[in-house]
Amino acid sequence: MPMSRVMKKQPSHETHIRVRYQETDQMGVVYHSNYLNYFEIGRTELLRTLGLSYREIEARGYLLAVTEIQMKIHASAFYDDLLLVRTKVEGYGPASIRFQYEISHRETGREIASGSTSLACLNAEKRPQRLPKELLACLQPKE
Amino acid sequence: MPMSRVMKKQPSHETHIRVRYQETDQMGVVYHSNYLNYFEIGRTELLRTLGLSYREIEARGYLLAVTEIQMKIHASAFYDDLLLVRTKVEGYGPASIRFQYEISHRETGREIASGSTSLACLNAEKRPQRLPKELLACLQPKE
Amino acid sequence: MPMSRVMKKQPSHETHIRVRYQETDQMGVVYHSNYLNYFEIGRTELLRTLGLSYREIEARGYLLAVTEIQMKIHASAFYDDLLLVRTKVEGYGPASIRFQYEISHRETGREIASGSTSLACLNAEKRPQRLPKELLACLQPKE
Amino acid sequence: MPMSRVMKKQPSHETHIRVRYQETDQMGVVYHSNYLNYFEIGRTELLRTLGLSYREIEARGYLLAVTEIQMKIHASAFYDDLLLVRTKVEGYGPASIRFQYEISHRETGREIASGSTSLACLNAEKRPQRLPKELLACLQPKE
Repeated sequence: MPMSRVMKKQPSHETHIRVRYQETDQMGVVYHSNYLNYFEIGRTELLRTLGLSYREIEARGYLLAVTEIQMKIHASAFYDDLLLVRTKVEGYGPASIRFQYEISHRETGREIASGSTSLACLNAEKRPQRLPKELLACLQPKE
Repeated sequence: MPMSRVMKKQPSHETHIRVRYQETDQMGVVYHSNYLNYFEIGRTELLRTLGLSYREIEARGYLLAVTEIQMKIHASAFYDDLLLVRTKVEGYGPASIRFQYEISHRETGREIASGSTSLACLNAEKRPQRLPKELLACLQPKE
Repeated sequence: MPMSRVMKKQPSHETHIRVRYQETDQMGVVYHSNYLNYFEIGRTELLRTLGLSYREIEARGYLLAVTEIQMKIHASAFYDDLLLVRTKVEGYGPASIRFQYEISHRETGREIASGSTSLACLNAEKRPQRLPKELLACLQPKE
Repeated sequence: MPMSRVMKKQPSHETHIRVRYQETDQMGVVYHSNYLNYFEIGRTELLRTLGLSYREIEARGYLLAVTEIQMKIHASAFYDDLLLVRTKVEGYGPASIRFQYEISHRETGREIASGSTSLACLNAEKRPQRLPKELLACLQPKE
């Protein structure tokens, strides 16, 4: 997905997530697909901080659907661990936006997983449409 | 939820489910909330066999939303186990239906979990409405 | 499961949970099995407050495995809703403990779901064993 | 992760998966993290066909832990859709193995998602170890 705009000053956010028992598997660690849920929480909270929650984006008739995922898992996370998710807007195009994520143990700083996701902006009929102006406004660096 | 009609000849169905790695937890067994997903699969396949798939029910403007759950877990299920889910229609009321479930190991017959769920029939605005006639017709004993 | 001890002054706790996108389904509401995950979070945080985290319980060689579930769903919860989970210890027996839960919308107070779960205390071989003394001590009313 | 051996004749397998209600989200489509679960099922069934189930691999003291994920989502999958998952062994190194996946609608052939995952071979202490010989034997092209 072409990103016409790679951001110099990337909006970013940090949020905490406590690992749930249901998210562990019989290896005794977080099952890997859950990191995608943590990524989702990361961008949800980033958007909220920027001033336009994802709920509000959908209420205005825009959907952001994940189209590409890259993830590396560097170490295991365990039940009840408190994790730190750092999320950045990496860039955006006319009808897409890409986020970067880093998940680490909050206490030790140990890197757990990192990755990026691209999201396409769609209308209610699941057709591509331009990112909402209100979102673009939020992405501009504040003076 | 009152069931005005407890069925003598209860429509029933058996389906097989293979336990997924993601469904295990760090105790090395199936995490209990997954049994609710297995219940869902059981009633989905029962409805399909009766001749009216749940997808079709929704397409006709009816939602069946779970309102009550009872479950007992008798023994553990493990990764890659092949399970047997027996599902029955226990009874129904004007705007609700109740299913019973028994989950066992297919090979050993060992009982894993059992329970029941009540579902309310709703319209698109999430208001109660009568069960669709097509569903009631499917629930009648065949001559 | 017999509860030899129903508690007069029930230890209780309140925790907040934000609904995740992944937890919604195509009805546009929280899929019901997720409430069991919220129950789990409720008792995890209650135990932490009592002074003995569930992680610590497992580290000492005790497992608490869910054996019975009862749940009623009173209203829908939606994406990004902030929920309040109230958890109480309802009672306990020699080798079991039962928790009660009430989930409501934090802002409106609207009741979403309520229920209870019984948990059996097991050893590493999944055999019943008595509840750890440290846990019983935590359950006693403080002077 | 270096793959010392890219396979000419790649062992492959096709398996079917029916979309569960719980896997949909409020966009009315399969939530993206579920495709990782489908990938897992794909490689589980491929390994079973090759003659060494993943359960058996773990029983022999080997763990295969996902370390890298790449995925593209091309179109939406819906509740109750029957999907086809094609899985291939892309290559392997001394202590790792990489799988490729293509998910499509079984009926229409429409491409839904594709990707690859790398897995590291670990021992019970989560330390890297060489792939089990029995697995390597299964990966060799049959005469």
